[in-house]
Amino acid sequence: MLHVHICEVGPRDGLQNAHHLMPTEAKKRWIAALAAAGLREIEVGSFVPPKLIPAMADTGEIVRFSLGLNIKVVALAPNLKGFQRALEAGAHKVTFPVSASRKHSESNVRMTPEQMVEEVRKCAALPHPGVEIEGAVSTAFGCTMQGAVPEGDVVRIAVALAEFCDCVALADTVGYANPAQIKRVFRKVKNQIGSKLEAAHLHNTRGLGLANALAAYEEGVRHFDSSLGGLGGCPFAPGASGNVITEDLVFMFEAMGVSTGIDLDKLMAARKLMVEAIPQEQTYGHFALAGAPKGFRGGGINTSA
Amino acid sequence: MLHVHICEVGPRDGLQNAHHLMPTEAKKRWIAALAAAGLREIEVGSFVPPKLIPAMADTGEIVRFSLGLNIKVVALAPNLKGFQRALEAGAHKVTFPVSASRKHSESNVRMTPEQMVEEVRKCAALPHPGVEIEGAVSTAFGCTMQGAVPEGDVVRIAVALAEFCDCVALADTVGYANPAQIKRVFRKVKNQIGSKLEAAHLHNTRGLGLANALAAYEEGVRHFDSSLGGLGGCPFAPGASGNVITEDLVFMFEAMGVSTGIDLDKLMAARKLMVEAIPQEQTYGHFALAGAPKGFRGGGINTSA
Repeated sequence: MLHVHICEVGPRDGLQNAHHLMPTEAKKRWIAALAAAGLREIEVGSFVPPKLIPAMADTGEIVRFSLGLNIKVVALAPNLKGFQRALEAGAHKVTFPVSASRKHSESNVRMTPEQMVEEVRKCAALPHPGVEIEGAVSTAFGCTMQGAVPEGDVVRIAVALAEFCDCVALADTVGYANPAQIKRVFRKVKNQIGSKLEAAHLHNTRGLGLANALAAYEEGVRHFDSSLGGLGGCPFAPGASGNVITEDLVFMFEAMGVSTGIDLDKLMAARKLMVEAIPQEQTYGHFALAGAPKGFRGGGINTSA
Repeated sequence: MLHVHICEVGPRDGLQNAHHLMPTEAKKRWIAALAAAGLREIEVGSFVPPKLIPAMADTGEIVRFSLGLNIKVVALAPNLKGFQRALEAGAHKVTFPVSASRKHSESNVRMTPEQMVEEVRKCAALPHPGVEIEGAVSTAFGCTMQGAVPEGDVVRIAVALAEFCDCVALADTVGYANPAQIKRVFRKVKNQIGSKLEAAHLHNTRGLGLANALAAYEEGVRHFDSSLGGLGGCPFAPGASGNVITEDLVFMFEAMGVSTGIDLDKLMAARKLMVEAIPQEQTYGHFALAGAPKGFRGGGINTSA
């Protein structure tokens, strides 16, 4: 049976970029509903300074709550301090964004990409029994500040991270990627680090989210980040969607006969909870509007023909 | 140089399903702007009874106007009478929809698919010097009434049409297709009729328009129908987009280094004319919101890396 693994990043990447704060109790209900829909991995928050991103101020509490659900609990950490907070809270997996764009890295974390790699290396050297470390190469397909990002830079950072991370992801942070580029860059990185290359973190800013996911799938990628309702939008493109949309991604794969382990009806129930919790926030997605094709049962509607 | 050929179907498929009528003079300005943007083929209208679809009542005048532009002028005809009107008006190409779904065919044209094939055969037997005939297998990937459409039915109809049509298209009329199915069905039909299989006519109802276009491209398809701004929506899914969105499709291919011959800036100017002509009509698309990536020049932004 073909299958893919989807990590819901809405509670982190979505809410971090949303215009409205979701109350802590609503976050818990939403994350529990996501788990009930079959999501086995959820990025629930980010250990950044609460003053910088108030939406992430309750991440410790959210991590602790999420440990009671049958999921892998992921948290983002931008530095050593964030990593220590993630370990204290008990996260199962910590993801570190390392920007391949020099300009983005310096503006975002006031470190060069090389300095950020060293920061992650320091974290990985600390004892962290049973905790997975992911190195996520962000702006791997282009950057709103720098424009093109040399593919050699992406490969170099991925190789450096693979030395001490359990897995490496490539992120199209600002929705610049195209399917040909996705295939080319994933192939180049895979040639260097093999199965340590794991997830594709895609955005839908220019509508290419699903096409890029398909391209990555065809290149052998089986781990995808996405966010329910494309929550969060894009700070650089008002009105444009944020992450690739979970329910549309699930529908695409299930329609292709690729199992996600996710129940679309229950996922729509989780979406409803999210929308109710931040009703003014713009959400996206086609499946939520159009519903399933008549006779759809996953595994393709036409496979018996 | 890799390239694809895009046929704009907004003036037909878009306006036919729109909630607002576009005045004839505005249609002309829009079609002229599309031609100026580099579209070399435009489906400008449909020769259906004006009482049934008032939006298409001026198709004769629009065809005659469009003959003065440097484009292949396409019109839809549902039957012999429509074909005769298309010939009189001077269309360069006439496309006949033949539904692979028995239920859809009987409800839409009150003919079985077999009777509709015979209707097209009668048309093709008339003298039509220099006029291209396309047989478009509609609901080829599923139907809102019937659900799944057997792939054998699609192949059978395509083979029948290929006998007397110049080219055959496969249409995902209601946005049911998925990328795996697209590849499978296009391959099956191509195995039977070879290069007579030409265009993919895709809808974006469930957001898979670009992913399906990518799948078709990878299967060798080089002709695509699309509509600017996803105009027209979907009568079966309020709020959902109509045809695959021209500007997003152009952006995807250009970003991949696949030439479309279309100027995105001029295409945006044509979009503006369309929106001004029917300002209350909902339009769609990501490129129009997000714009091009920094440093984008077509041919991919990262190819120099």
